[in-house]
Amino acid sequence: MNFASDNTAGIAPGIMDALARANDGFALGYGNDSLTRAAERLIGEVFECDAAVFMVPTGTAANALSLAHVTPPWGAVLCHAQAHIMTDECGAPEFYGGGLKLIGLPGAGCKLAPETVERAIARYSGHVPHQVNAAALSITQATEAGTIYRAEEIAALADIAHAHGLAVHMDGARFGNAIARMNVTAAEATWKAGVDILSFGATKGGAMAAEAVVVFDRKRADFMGERRKRAGQLLSKHRFLAAQFEGYLNDGYWLRLARHANAMADRLAYGLRGCGAPVVWDVDANIVFVLLPRALDQKLKAAGASYYVRPNTLAGDDVVIGADQMLVRLVTSFATTDHEVDRFIALVRAG
Amino acid sequence: MNFASDNTAGIAPGIMDALARANDGFALGYGNDSLTRAAERLIGEVFECDAAVFMVPTGTAANALSLAHVTPPWGAVLCHAQAHIMTDECGAPEFYGGGLKLIGLPGAGCKLAPETVERAIARYSGHVPHQVNAAALSITQATEAGTIYRAEEIAALADIAHAHGLAVHMDGARFGNAIARMNVTAAEATWKAGVDILSFGATKGGAMAAEAVVVFDRKRADFMGERRKRAGQLLSKHRFLAAQFEGYLNDGYWLRLARHANAMADRLAYGLRGCGAPVVWDVDANIVFVLLPRALDQKLKAAGASYYVRPNTLAGDDVVIGADQMLVRLVTSFATTDHEVDRFIALVRAG
Amino acid sequence: MNFASDNTAGIAPGIMDALARANDGFALGYGNDSLTRAAERLIGEVFECDAAVFMVPTGTAANALSLAHVTPPWGAVLCHAQAHIMTDECGAPEFYGGGLKLIGLPGAGCKLAPETVERAIARYSGHVPHQVNAAALSITQATEAGTIYRAEEIAALADIAHAHGLAVHMDGARFGNAIARMNVTAAEATWKAGVDILSFGATKGGAMAAEAVVVFDRKRADFMGERRKRAGQLLSKHRFLAAQFEGYLNDGYWLRLARHANAMADRLAYGLRGCGAPVVWDVDANIVFVLLPRALDQKLKAAGASYYVRPNTLAGDDVVIGADQMLVRLVTSFATTDHEVDRFIALVRAG
Amino acid sequence: MNFASDNTAGIAPGIMDALARANDGFALGYGNDSLTRAAERLIGEVFECDAAVFMVPTGTAANALSLAHVTPPWGAVLCHAQAHIMTDECGAPEFYGGGLKLIGLPGAGCKLAPETVERAIARYSGHVPHQVNAAALSITQATEAGTIYRAEEIAALADIAHAHGLAVHMDGARFGNAIARMNVTAAEATWKAGVDILSFGATKGGAMAAEAVVVFDRKRADFMGERRKRAGQLLSKHRFLAAQFEGYLNDGYWLRLARHANAMADRLAYGLRGCGAPVVWDVDANIVFVLLPRALDQKLKAAGASYYVRPNTLAGDDVVIGADQMLVRLVTSFATTDHEVDRFIALVRAG
Repeated sequence: MNFASDNTAGIAPGIMDALARANDGFALGYGNDSLTRAAERLIGEVFECDAAVFMVPTGTAANALSLAHVTPPWGAVLCHAQAHIMTDECGAPEFYGGGLKLIGLPGAGCKLAPETVERAIARYSGHVPHQVNAAALSITQATEAGTIYRAEEIAALADIAHAHGLAVHMDGARFGNAIARMNVTAAEATWKAGVDILSFGATKGGAMAAEAVVVFDRKRADFMGERRKRAGQLLSKHRFLAAQFEGYLNDGYWLRLARHANAMADRLAYGLRGCGAPVVWDVDANIVFVLLPRALDQKLKAAGASYYVRPNTLAGDDVVIGADQMLVRLVTSFATTDHEVDRFIALVRAG
Repeated sequence: MNFASDNTAGIAPGIMDALARANDGFALGYGNDSLTRAAERLIGEVFECDAAVFMVPTGTAANALSLAHVTPPWGAVLCHAQAHIMTDECGAPEFYGGGLKLIGLPGAGCKLAPETVERAIARYSGHVPHQVNAAALSITQATEAGTIYRAEEIAALADIAHAHGLAVHMDGARFGNAIARMNVTAAEATWKAGVDILSFGATKGGAMAAEAVVVFDRKRADFMGERRKRAGQLLSKHRFLAAQFEGYLNDGYWLRLARHANAMADRLAYGLRGCGAPVVWDVDANIVFVLLPRALDQKLKAAGASYYVRPNTLAGDDVVIGADQMLVRLVTSFATTDHEVDRFIALVRAG
Repeated sequence: MNFASDNTAGIAPGIMDALARANDGFALGYGNDSLTRAAERLIGEVFECDAAVFMVPTGTAANALSLAHVTPPWGAVLCHAQAHIMTDECGAPEFYGGGLKLIGLPGAGCKLAPETVERAIARYSGHVPHQVNAAALSITQATEAGTIYRAEEIAALADIAHAHGLAVHMDGARFGNAIARMNVTAAEATWKAGVDILSFGATKGGAMAAEAVVVFDRKRADFMGERRKRAGQLLSKHRFLAAQFEGYLNDGYWLRLARHANAMADRLAYGLRGCGAPVVWDVDANIVFVLLPRALDQKLKAAGASYYVRPNTLAGDDVVIGADQMLVRLVTSFATTDHEVDRFIALVRAG
Repeated sequence: MNFASDNTAGIAPGIMDALARANDGFALGYGNDSLTRAAERLIGEVFECDAAVFMVPTGTAANALSLAHVTPPWGAVLCHAQAHIMTDECGAPEFYGGGLKLIGLPGAGCKLAPETVERAIARYSGHVPHQVNAAALSITQATEAGTIYRAEEIAALADIAHAHGLAVHMDGARFGNAIARMNVTAAEATWKAGVDILSFGATKGGAMAAEAVVVFDRKRADFMGERRKRAGQLLSKHRFLAAQFEGYLNDGYWLRLARHANAMADRLAYGLRGCGAPVVWDVDANIVFVLLPRALDQKLKAAGASYYVRPNTLAGDDVVIGADQMLVRLVTSFATTDHEVDRFIALVRAG
């Protein structure tokens, strides 16, 4: 019953196979190899776009490189107050970005509303040189709450951002989970809706350590290669990073993996609601937030369940949490089984 | 005939097996797993030392983290003018180190002599706050020329450094090749000789992407965890990084891989000398620098040989290079075969 | 009627005289002169403490140097959401601090309450290496709202900070105004109450461009000299910076200047209240926030009054601002006259 | 006999007067005042150019801002190995420039030759993303050796730089001394010869603390205001910085001050040569390097002479320094008198 994170799962079999296949003979280092070209082509096909692609081993690196690329050191990035870049990257965006500023904004279910962004832009504009000015908007897809932005929602936010000269970044650590849920293409959910730069994550979806910075307009990718190198993020045996993407994306494998993870989250949410446990936000992706009796914690853990209890402050003002309740985050993955889910629900039901 | 770099080789079989073994079930992310503990223990055993270990996917990251850790932004790192940190990391040490300064020093065979270091320390000391002061010495083992520092040589340099308050860093991207050649232990070649912090490389030796910052005195490792995280260098599925080290180090595998690479370099050097081609420096590790007729270049490449011609300036003043000669770097690896070596020599002999 | 800022005033006569006196003969540069020693001694006397003193020409520099000195790049500084360091320094603390994070906290009258700080420390502690950890608390004295922290209030905050290992910084751009109001010594309002490092401002008080970083425990001042130099903040003809402090502090001049500025603010507040204009916060120093009819703006400006209308959001939730009201900031200085104040009040009264 | 530095002199009378004049009434802060506009206009007139001007209090700040503005963090600045930015700014360019790299080049009399620059550009070009690439050339005028670049020499260097996409920066800490010597205009010696950005120093020439970053092509000045602010280099009472420039430049005062300093250096050099003391480099500006008997050091200092003995390494290979000789730097200023000079020469002659 591993619901602590989708990064507790291992490597999906199709990706492990791709790694093994890649381990044949010699190949030039640092991305100057045919497998890297193939993976880039594959990403281009997925996004229907001749994008510039920069693969790196961590999501924090992808985010920090992206934000530093579109925001000057004297600029601000608008994001949700609970965004991963804000709370869980130990200041990587600030480090890569030469001291840029993240502005955390409120929003239910870790989603930003257009009027919130509009107000923030108004506040962080114009007072040069005294104030940092808003230079980028970063949204997470799927969000840290497991919700997703629909294409029209993205477009609405991006339109506001672009109207004021901000670039739009998407933290797509769980991009596959979002796409698997929506009836839109990857292109429609990104550049066609106004996303300029994407952290495209494969790790949580089933890879070992593979993320990519995707710059949709190749003309805006200048010097990203240097950024990546000087950040120590350019792998020498780069073909194995490319191989992960090749295995992940080939023949829609990534969406099959994501659909399974999402289905497991649905099953969890359905079961928990059936027990009367309040599921906090829409379960759009592979994360379920639920209020469980504090008294259950010890019992669940004793039975082998693994998950994180999150601080109540995370929930925001619109969620009422009883004194005897805890806010539990459950994350599913490609490796989650029906059996795990059902056992967990049974434990909750037994109370 | 792949002699371009040891990073053109793939993953050594024993390490691929370790990755496969690690892909079993769930494990907590970010290094909070038992395989990481096991790999750390193994590194501790190799170095006979309760060291603090921080694994990362690239050598540039290991170097930049190490140097930033022992040098303040207003400090200088003394290193060879041809050191990898100086010439091939696109300013990563300066980036991680908040603008620290690298001071490139001369030395035959990419090795630093004690008097060179002594003079540099004298020059970069005392003029505070106007000048940056020498804060660390960085040496490469094996060097970029394929030579190695013997334990006594390291100790002589480290004694000078420590006497003036400098920390000693070793870039051990090819540490295995150096140890495989010398009749000393890893401990004797590092902390027992005065090395404070080591970039311990496994990638060039046969791993996919695995390096470790080893801080020999655990008390000096404070905040390295934060450094690694904010640099985007903490892998979420960390067990697969640990697995590479486990496979690499277990049962002396790393030294067997290195001995093979070194033997192939010996074979190359022996054969080239037999053809009258001047081998430039001592072949201590898995790199051979040789002067070949420029006229051969096209022929060798047409026959499928892969290598880099390096600028004459690399050689320094003590090496005389004829106008019709080119300075060729040949690097061997665990995957190099007798056959490749012999074919290359035959081509050179044929002229 | 210049109430835009205390930095619109010129140089107080006693300080101009000191500059002229200092311009006699030759003196070694970079602070190696007797006038600098004398100014340092004078600051030591004012604070009854053998403090380490680093003079710089701007308050932003003093703040940024101070915060960078007590906070690692992976640390957070807790401060009020309206603090100058947060809103008006274009990211200088982040730049100097290598990407450190400022956490803006709420509080009426720009003051932080102990429980607010306590909660913030709890939130920004322990989740290493994923989150930045609270490393310093910064308070402004007098605050941006013109209120002041009493010595006991400072001690209460500092006790909390120290109990959790945080350093305490005070932005004393208007330190003189605060001291002039309270019946305590400069020592009692700083290090005796737990302040570790102070940005001691003279510019707003009457100097041309003179601020000092005061590190009360000299043992904690290591490398501040290098920080200042590499920030381009070490003046070559340093004696003229020292001369400003000498003129400012000698014989209690700074407090006389501050008392005048404060008295002018009192006179303003008294007069405005007399006209029925709501003065928003306690007028503790030389700043008055008042709600005036929007209709008055044009008339006041036409009559030559200079001031800033601040956004309503600055006021916080506990201040009710009518749709026809504007939040006006009035700042007095050593150069403000009774006449200016009375004219302004007359204009408001006339409506 | 103060020859330690031109920054040991005080403030020239005409500049002190300008400060006093400026101290009249109120003026908006941060450069939003009429005196600042006037000083900018004056600088524009001096350079016959609608340049963007950013005044700061130190030369290190002017240099660091300039270099950071024209060089990305992954770029290199080519400069003389003895340039002030290389040896005496404690890493300020690297700090402001996010870790950019300075490449120190050789050259007699602290001057760079075209072929040296050409070779360096060739070496630091093209190997992206592994190497930092040359992005700017920085020359000092007058140089640290007291020599100057003639307009044609600047043009020759700038042509090479521009042909390879490098920007050209001039460290003009002693720009006045250079112009006073040459029969060319300030425009001819800067932008007309290809200089893109100038650190225009007034401090050494007679101001208190006044330097300006001059961006000749206003379109290339974007965001310099933000850079200056976040570096803590924007003075609040900016009119007093502007006043120094106004006093310095008005009616050719700066050139009269510089001519006097240069004349004093000439007199020194003439007298020293007359005593048989070898003057090392051309005395083009206000600095004289001379070889004096070591035995004289104590006697000169006892008689009250103040100067620096510089390390022999500074002189380079083409200057032969006897074991009993010392390399002495003598700097004159607007405040140096005939009498001082003559006394010093008499002491040397007396032996």
